[in-house]
Amino acid sequence: MRQLFELCGRDEDVRFSPYVWRIRMALMHKGLDFEGVPIRFLNKQPLENAQSKTVPVLNDDGTWVKDSFEIALYLEKTYPDAPLFGGPIAEGQARLLNAFIDNTVVRGIFPMIVADIHARLDEKNGSYFREAREKFLGCSLEEAQAGRDAALPKFRASLTPIRNTLGFQKFLSGDAPAWADYCLFGTLMWARIASDFELLDADDPIHAWRESMLDLFDGYARSAKLAY
Amino acid sequence: MRQLFELCGRDEDVRFSPYVWRIRMALMHKGLDFEGVPIRFLNKQPLENAQSKTVPVLNDDGTWVKDSFEIALYLEKTYPDAPLFGGPIAEGQARLLNAFIDNTVVRGIFPMIVADIHARLDEKNGSYFREAREKFLGCSLEEAQAGRDAALPKFRASLTPIRNTLGFQKFLSGDAPAWADYCLFGTLMWARIASDFELLDADDPIHAWRESMLDLFDGYARSAKLAY
Repeated sequence: MRQLFELCGRDEDVRFSPYVWRIRMALMHKGLDFEGVPIRFLNKQPLENAQSKTVPVLNDDGTWVKDSFEIALYLEKTYPDAPLFGGPIAEGQARLLNAFIDNTVVRGIFPMIVADIHARLDEKNGSYFREAREKFLGCSLEEAQAGRDAALPKFRASLTPIRNTLGFQKFLSGDAPAWADYCLFGTLMWARIASDFELLDADDPIHAWRESMLDLFDGYARSAKLAY
Repeated sequence: MRQLFELCGRDEDVRFSPYVWRIRMALMHKGLDFEGVPIRFLNKQPLENAQSKTVPVLNDDGTWVKDSFEIALYLEKTYPDAPLFGGPIAEGQARLLNAFIDNTVVRGIFPMIVADIHARLDEKNGSYFREAREKFLGCSLEEAQAGRDAALPKFRASLTPIRNTLGFQKFLSGDAPAWADYCLFGTLMWARIASDFELLDADDPIHAWRESMLDLFDGYARSAKLAY
């Protein structure tokens, strides 16, 4: 039995965590079946088996693993077929790529969709989310999100290294998708599921890449339930 | 015979190109002997064999290769021992890491040392450099460099993904240095050789990493001639 614990909205079928999506795609890449188990911000008890306070947590038939990158490394070691990295140097590099994506893409997207995320939550979880996130942002969720049209050009410019890379190769991992692609794509799925705000210009090579990623595994990610 | 064509200053022993330093380190990593051939901005005729207008160019016993990343891929393919990547996924990822380092670190450092670089050049090459770079910068070299104390905090903040990575592992490539490390380190050697301006705080984990890199190959990079 393989369980992937993940955040859901008021609607249990709306699963929006960027870090969980990285692992969903990694599991599909490895051809591993799993059951997604929905939890909410205020109901993280199932995560205690992994001593974790955040999703994703993987229960791989009794082996509990937390943290998306640790889970990716665990999957690579335990199921070496269909590599996500293919060697220790790629694993080392991937930590820097994760950090770049977290620092640039996650942080860039967050204020632009934060009120939309809140709108997907039930009252109790929404109150928790609002309090924690407004403390972090230093302003209301609505104020943060109201700046998104103005913030968009800078966000798009911050993706320059990704855009340049896709000018040379089809995927961030080379000729075929692997971890670096799932890492970025999972982040974009967060925005896709929670918000109808379009982050990418239609002419952007990253837009075309995202379409390819949505097509993978018979349109697996494309069929994910959207919140709007 | 293996020749690496590289830029030099007025003093022929001052070799400061960031992209050449990436390849110097990659050649040392592979244990490959080479002769560094100094050229100047206005004397790029030797590069024509590789149809290149920029350094580095490698002449590997009659095989001419241009562009630092293309040279790295060529070295990996031709001399697979002591891998710089260790597989196609790492090569794919490395293109994104290069783009991140070029976009963040090269562009961040450039205005902070640009007048210092100019000061290392002879009159004719210096004039060429000044004209081309002032056009790019939209101001004088001296004006650009005068802003460096003010620019430094933002530059250091832009290195956050690198700093975070070094909190988990000794090198950007994992337990041991490889291409991603040489890519960043080569960029920092540019600043080290051309300028006495200190980019990194002494407490910064990147500073400690740079010291390790300077120690590699019996202190190879540490012994490079500085311009000041």
